[in-house]
Amino acid sequence: MPEIIRQATPLDVSGMLGLMRELAEYEKLTHLFVATEESLGDALFGPHPAAEALVAEREGNIVGYALYFQNFSTFLGRRGLYLEDLYVQPALRGSGLGTRLLRRVAAIAVERQCGRFEWSVLDWNQPAIDFYTKMGATVMPDWRIVRVTDDALRQLAAAA
Amino acid sequence: MPEIIRQATPLDVSGMLGLMRELAEYEKLTHLFVATEESLGDALFGPHPAAEALVAEREGNIVGYALYFQNFSTFLGRRGLYLEDLYVQPALRGSGLGTRLLRRVAAIAVERQCGRFEWSVLDWNQPAIDFYTKMGATVMPDWRIVRVTDDALRQLAAAA
Repeated sequence: MPEIIRQATPLDVSGMLGLMRELAEYEKLTHLFVATEESLGDALFGPHPAAEALVAEREGNIVGYALYFQNFSTFLGRRGLYLEDLYVQPALRGSGLGTRLLRRVAAIAVERQCGRFEWSVLDWNQPAIDFYTKMGATVMPDWRIVRVTDDALRQLAAAA
Repeated sequence: MPEIIRQATPLDVSGMLGLMRELAEYEKLTHLFVATEESLGDALFGPHPAAEALVAEREGNIVGYALYFQNFSTFLGRRGLYLEDLYVQPALRGSGLGTRLLRRVAAIAVERQCGRFEWSVLDWNQPAIDFYTKMGATVMPDWRIVRVTDDALRQLAAAA
């Protein structure tokens, strides 16, 4: 296998940001994409990191990544890992890179004695749903994500 | 208002755990509930906290709580807050306590310059959906939560 999977370093930030833009395009969410090299670098390698990442490197280029952070389940009383992004460039889909990235994050979850490993998927993204299901994951039918942003968040906060 | 909302302390762990059991019953998820005072105390007040909590106190009893932790949006390049649990005892529903707890967590999110405040809801829990929508939140129609636990997680990790 010519690809190497390893922990991201500050030198990977620029390459990862390029892939994040590609992912936003695939998910039809470019209007939400406002991350910069600075914000990503701070989140991963600043004094108070908010996330961690693995990258897939091929011939010196970053061709895929997995970005994750810790969460917590009240019911289990245990920490978990949440996978915010999993991305492999289209030309390399089917090469097993996505599987390898997902397994590596699962291995980190087990090492850390996490009770769960979770992420989200768009309900129209059937290739992804099929892939995750094949890997042993369960797509929860009945939970919905609720979100407050921008003005609505400031209004909610101002009433506190 | 006879209820006080404040940051949880180690003395609240026992009361919070009782409410968490009630929430698990309401969500029909008691089979998943394995948290203990020890695990909750460690998560909130141990050397490496995984979550934070607000409690609603009335006449010396904990009658509601909000438990939350930090997450991260790649697209925004910013941290967010994720509300894992929001619970108010049935006898006090409609008293405004849930609203006050939600607003307080939103205020913490704004203080910390978070880009988002998020949580999850069961799609059959219409009273909760109506409440959140009234507060300015959006229920995302197309995202689904994917989860790997227990044996499936160990198998996925073992193949890494």
